Amino acid sequence: MKTAGWRCEVTSKYRRLARQLQGQIENGVWQPGDKLPSLRETVKQSGFSLMTVLNAYQLLESQGWILAQPQSGYRVAPCQHSPANLARPALHAAEAVDVNAFIFNVLQSGQRPDCVAFGSAFPDASLFPQEQLARSLGRVARHLTPDQQLVLPPGCAELRRAIARRYAARGMEVTPEEIVITSGALEALNLSLQTLTRPGDWVVVEAPAFYGALQAIERLQLKALAVPADVTAGLDLDALADALGRYPVKACWLMSHCQNPLGVSLGVQSRSRLLALLREHQVPLIEDDVYMELYDGERAPLPLRAQDPGVLHCSSFSKTLATGLRIGWVSAGKRAPDIQRLQLMSTLSTSAPMQLALADYLASHHYDRHLRTLRRVLQQRKQRFYEALCQLLPAQVRVDPGTGGYFLWLSLPESMDATRLYHLALAEGITIAPGRMFAAGEQFRHCFRLNVSLPWNSRTEAAVGRLSVLIRALISGC
Amino acid sequence: MKTAGWRCEVTSKYRRLARQLQGQIENGVWQPGDKLPSLRETVKQSGFSLMTVLNAYQLLESQGWILAQPQSGYRVAPCQHSPANLARPALHAAEAVDVNAFIFNVLQSGQRPDCVAFGSAFPDASLFPQEQLARSLGRVARHLTPDQQLVLPPGCAELRRAIARRYAARGMEVTPEEIVITSGALEALNLSLQTLTRPGDWVVVEAPAFYGALQAIERLQLKALAVPADVTAGLDLDALADALGRYPVKACWLMSHCQNPLGVSLGVQSRSRLLALLREHQVPLIEDDVYMELYDGERAPLPLRAQDPGVLHCSSFSKTLATGLRIGWVSAGKRAPDIQRLQLMSTLSTSAPMQLALADYLASHHYDRHLRTLRRVLQQRKQRFYEALCQLLPAQVRVDPGTGGYFLWLSLPESMDATRLYHLALAEGITIAPGRMFAAGEQFRHCFRLNVSLPWNSRTEAAVGRLSVLIRALISGC
Repeated sequence: MKTAGWRCEVTSKYRRLARQLQGQIENGVWQPGDKLPSLRETVKQSGFSLMTVLNAYQLLESQGWILAQPQSGYRVAPCQHSPANLARPALHAAEAVDVNAFIFNVLQSGQRPDCVAFGSAFPDASLFPQEQLARSLGRVARHLTPDQQLVLPPGCAELRRAIARRYAARGMEVTPEEIVITSGALEALNLSLQTLTRPGDWVVVEAPAFYGALQAIERLQLKALAVPADVTAGLDLDALADALGRYPVKACWLMSHCQNPLGVSLGVQSRSRLLALLREHQVPLIEDDVYMELYDGERAPLPLRAQDPGVLHCSSFSKTLATGLRIGWVSAGKRAPDIQRLQLMSTLSTSAPMQLALADYLASHHYDRHLRTLRRVLQQRKQRFYEALCQLLPAQVRVDPGTGGYFLWLSLPESMDATRLYHLALAEGITIAPGRMFAAGEQFRHCFRLNVSLPWNSRTEAAVGRLSVLIRALISGC
Repeated sequence: MKTAGWRCEVTSKYRRLARQLQGQIENGVWQPGDKLPSLRETVKQSGFSLMTVLNAYQLLESQGWILAQPQSGYRVAPCQHSPANLARPALHAAEAVDVNAFIFNVLQSGQRPDCVAFGSAFPDASLFPQEQLARSLGRVARHLTPDQQLVLPPGCAELRRAIARRYAARGMEVTPEEIVITSGALEALNLSLQTLTRPGDWVVVEAPAFYGALQAIERLQLKALAVPADVTAGLDLDALADALGRYPVKACWLMSHCQNPLGVSLGVQSRSRLLALLREHQVPLIEDDVYMELYDGERAPLPLRAQDPGVLHCSSFSKTLATGLRIGWVSAGKRAPDIQRLQLMSTLSTSAPMQLALADYLASHHYDRHLRTLRRVLQQRKQRFYEALCQLLPAQVRVDPGTGGYFLWLSLPESMDATRLYHLALAEGITIAPGRMFAAGEQFRHCFRLNVSLPWNSRTEAAVGRLSVLIRALISGC
């Protein structure tokens, strides 16, 4: 009896351990070819006896999960048990899912290497100065001192000075103290909005708008006043005046240059009237200016912040230098301390080595040269896609090239639904950013945004061809 | 007339430009010794004529702000005009300022190189494996491909697998899919809380608690139920049962191991009762486990997550590897998709090269060796400070060493105010973390937390000596 009991316990122990390891292999904790922990390590970690561990490994080996390697322990067997695919995004967006889930799926699908990512929000990463940034990162890594490891808000002083110099080069007076480094422009915008509002407050945004604005408003339990914008004049200032007159608006979040998704920029007179309206109603402005460096033509546009030091000016390096650095900033004027306190509570700070690497890169004077090339290439690519689309698409489809950046805004006939086009195109490995992402209502359902920062080659040419075929089919099916 | 008008305009132009540049120097945009943009660059950027720019530079030179350098343009003159000091934290916290501002100041003061940072939340950065991390960062930087530049939620697959393996080594079943990489544990905790609650909801926290919990509750407009914890038993489970019975609690945020600031860990029976209570009331648990690797003794404690896969388990590498990486995670089980969506709206993701560098480092097997050394050194240092304080301080002061980590929790006689001690010590270049930081009420006003991860040397010995003198003076003055 005693022996049987002991046996039974041992049996279940090694089987339990084997099942655990098998589960880890199935879940992708260990991948084909990975070396497993040694018997000794596993004994130490699990508390089981060497015999139990050995039995478990041998069981897994006999089942083909792992392979014994002479002199070097056990490895996971190649492939037949395919682990859950970590990289596979959830692409089966049912029509019923909410807009946030939809946006999430669109962004994730832009990551798939097998897709032509016309739906992506980011420029073609091969345009970025990878090597020079890597050199800066390597340099910083080699010389990082312990006291540089943590940078609390407002962020690394060298980087804030470098950003202040870029403002200075445009004739703008922004001190390093006004600047708070954030985890991309998205955190800058979010912190700015949160600093200015309390749940239930009214906030003016554009329609259509960057979906991040709509999500932030939802997340912070605010109420959106969506003021119409169009591709020729930008924000409808009469509608804005009306909104400001009728609601106790606490903040306005907009893009004066190269508005996402329309690509439109405000004219000089509109800018002045906009600022006057906001001043009259004492509504602070959050200026999303992530495309500030990606203007068409020769002369850099001035942000609204140049005319009013009260504007919270948010930007980043994600669209010009490297999407994955996640370094942005807000030039927040007298509100900088509030932003810092809020950041301290939510993410504490952004990566110190990345901030230092960026400051190192900016000190090297490569950035302006890179920007000149980037602007030129993006303009050329946009032009190429624009011409192709104008040629291929039926006359009912309007294509607007915007005043900078790397997006085209396309409008199908109003009865049509670009979300259908999104699903059809996705099935063929092409993504687009449907209008539904950019407004709470349905008014842009017939529109979509195309990222045209990709090179014009056989792959993208074929994708544009397929898109135009799908669009023609949709139109003729209406 | 015409000439005079023209002249007048030119005069004001160059003076205006000179004033602008002077402002930039005063504000630290340009620092002593910095090279200013060339005349040609300035002409191009400002739109002014070469004559105007030259006049402006010569005016600044005549006023001693800048120096002409033969063959190499202009540089900012050394030092006499001292720029605003960027690094100086706001230390003059009046008693009236709110607790958040107070916490901000305490954290900032811990950054001052001239301070003995007993108030810091982070371990002595010289204990971190700087060089090995730098090597990983350099390696990643050299081989970064464009498609690795952006990592969307849930974060880099290699890193999530590496974290899952660490769970596996403790016998815990956590799949890489359940893990979301965040900007430090603070974002993990914040996203978890936001996923579980709506404004106005009740949340259980400990008293005292990590101030981040209190700030998150305030920021998300939640209501805190602070359940008492003490240095011997940890959380008062009768009080918790009472709170859960009387309020519709939506989440519980706590630390089962090495609680901050007390250092206490829950016993086996308390852990089971705690989980049973939460299950009974269907209250999800957010487990803050940032000290999971910094245990005293031989055996790693198991998180509560090991007993209940519904627990949102949050941790990071900030306390063990590098404070400034800002990489943490939440093992969020079935709630991982919600966390990802929320992250996509708030910070998008955390730095891609940093995630890859960390995955590279973790693959190198250095981490466990480093952790063994780190634990040993931290235990030795804590022991040394503990002994010194027990010897130096009067008997009325209680010193609790906790069950891991690098904090001591000190309690002065109840009538006393450790915030006074904070200000007195700060004036002598020593920081502490006063009890006021760790609760909404006043019940820990007589307590404070000491970071004892610093080496015991003449500087820290002298600081401990000064602290004990200040404490004795305060007590005798009562």
